[in-house]
Amino acid sequence: MHEMLMIDGLQYSNWSEAIFRQMREGGLSAVHATIAYHENARETLSRIGEWNRRFEAWPELIRPVRQASDIRLAHQEGRVGVFFGLQNCSPIEDDIDLVEVFRQLGVFIMQLTYNNQSLLASGCYESEDNGISRFGRQVIAEMNRVGMLIDMSHSAERSTLEAIELSSRPVIISHANPSSFHPARRNKSDRVLQAIAESGGLLGFSTYPFHLRDASNCSLEDFCDMVARTADLMGVQRIGIGSDLCQQQPLQVLEWMRNGRWSKDKDYGEGSADNAHWPEPLGWFRDSRDFPVIARGLRQRGFAETDVHDIMGLNWLRLLESSTTLQP
Amino acid sequence: MHEMLMIDGLQYSNWSEAIFRQMREGGLSAVHATIAYHENARETLSRIGEWNRRFEAWPELIRPVRQASDIRLAHQEGRVGVFFGLQNCSPIEDDIDLVEVFRQLGVFIMQLTYNNQSLLASGCYESEDNGISRFGRQVIAEMNRVGMLIDMSHSAERSTLEAIELSSRPVIISHANPSSFHPARRNKSDRVLQAIAESGGLLGFSTYPFHLRDASNCSLEDFCDMVARTADLMGVQRIGIGSDLCQQQPLQVLEWMRNGRWSKDKDYGEGSADNAHWPEPLGWFRDSRDFPVIARGLRQRGFAETDVHDIMGLNWLRLLESSTTLQP
Repeated sequence: MHEMLMIDGLQYSNWSEAIFRQMREGGLSAVHATIAYHENARETLSRIGEWNRRFEAWPELIRPVRQASDIRLAHQEGRVGVFFGLQNCSPIEDDIDLVEVFRQLGVFIMQLTYNNQSLLASGCYESEDNGISRFGRQVIAEMNRVGMLIDMSHSAERSTLEAIELSSRPVIISHANPSSFHPARRNKSDRVLQAIAESGGLLGFSTYPFHLRDASNCSLEDFCDMVARTADLMGVQRIGIGSDLCQQQPLQVLEWMRNGRWSKDKDYGEGSADNAHWPEPLGWFRDSRDFPVIARGLRQRGFAETDVHDIMGLNWLRLLESSTTLQP
Repeated sequence: MHEMLMIDGLQYSNWSEAIFRQMREGGLSAVHATIAYHENARETLSRIGEWNRRFEAWPELIRPVRQASDIRLAHQEGRVGVFFGLQNCSPIEDDIDLVEVFRQLGVFIMQLTYNNQSLLASGCYESEDNGISRFGRQVIAEMNRVGMLIDMSHSAERSTLEAIELSSRPVIISHANPSSFHPARRNKSDRVLQAIAESGGLLGFSTYPFHLRDASNCSLEDFCDMVARTADLMGVQRIGIGSDLCQQQPLQVLEWMRNGRWSKDKDYGEGSADNAHWPEPLGWFRDSRDFPVIARGLRQRGFAETDVHDIMGLNWLRLLESSTTLQP
């Protein structure tokens, strides 16, 4: 059992025994695993079926997180708890009832959009942002009721602010960084980050090079300085890690994330035609084994030990425990 | 709280507050509710969504049964516990992984066929019966593993005997009667009933007039005599009630049950062209309010009080408690 309970607030890796062993080696007690981008309801059932096979195949390494407190059990057992998230609302199709059905199947988190306009809201790559749609308001209320966290990582600014306004429970950005650190389209303004903090939500810092100053060359010192400045803005209880690790995924998966079935032209997302591939990982954060490197960097930046524990896992844990229950 | 814990082993009613109140009035603590006949996976999610709306709308009358012991809670609370069953394997499509997914969503029971040949086995209306298919063997093992009861109510004889042989856990007939009482195509031979009993399974006696001698005019005495003779054949621990009540359903639903999407000619199932409608209910068993009438009839037939309790609910309860857990 590792002393520190660490949670990664987003990964979409090409899951394998090797990757689960890296997670354990890095001391992770839980991971938010993306199970769908553009999948419909039926396809998402198969993604869950694939996870059930993994839980059956490697019970000594991983366990399903059916309720947030299972993460504490995973920590005690030295296993990695896995909770599911959807990076888009496509799995619920046009059916409000599917919010609860997917919550029953262990989906703790859903993004209202993935870059594009959805049935619920607008994405950060659209030129126009109409905020939250009629269906979107219904879905926010239903997510609040059944205890599914609203994640606005890939959403546009007005949609994000309106979702926070409409939601009676905390809203999160599971994986992104402040625009003030690096002005990427996927990063978030101070206004959004403050509103997330006021909602009781959380920002998970991303290690995806496109979200970082100097991209793959971003230094650990700069990363930890960003964390410190964001702690000043949002409060040290409102931040965590959402690595956005997409390990061992082929280019085809990146193209699925970017293009789904919606485009005949090739969309390059955060990349470009001459930079269409997965970015090089950070030298100091190759994979899940390097979570302790971040913890060390935060200590060196001057964070107190309790703050390091909060940022590396306990903030995520407390949020999941309070926000994924049926609404009282 | 009613003194006797009673369970109805199958209904497919047009669910409403009035029907739930009748169930409570009749003293039911739980009901096996059919949620799909010919629905595919996606459609079945919507049937589950509709049940979630009912649980939300009438929490004082009904509760979901997530594990079999919830039935004891329902009994204490004076509510009706609802557990789900599939009358056909269409919801799992061709995907072995969907067995566990639907089990996670509260499906306790699945029939391998509904009258016709399926991907798994043969139905009781087919002229040929090849027994259990290759996919069928996989599904039986998976149902055993995840704790989903195999129900052969609408299956053909060889398929039923092979399923019992292949299954490592009890196999049930949730709703049918002995052929020796009434030689309907849906009723079961003594050989099948003995094999069901030896598997540790259960026969739920049907009150559907097509399954009864003298149809809608079958007397309570004859019904209870059938129960007594079957107790001699199978053992008093291996029998229960599976009323097959389909209350307030329009003709259109009967046609869906019989024809699904598989036939361009109209199939009349147990009826006929000049008898195409729902049968008249039994005079002494109008609806769920009349469960105590059956209990009274059994006492009059000479069953001991403990036997009456077993037949009216405890046999179902013990079977569900032992057979719907993950395989140890």
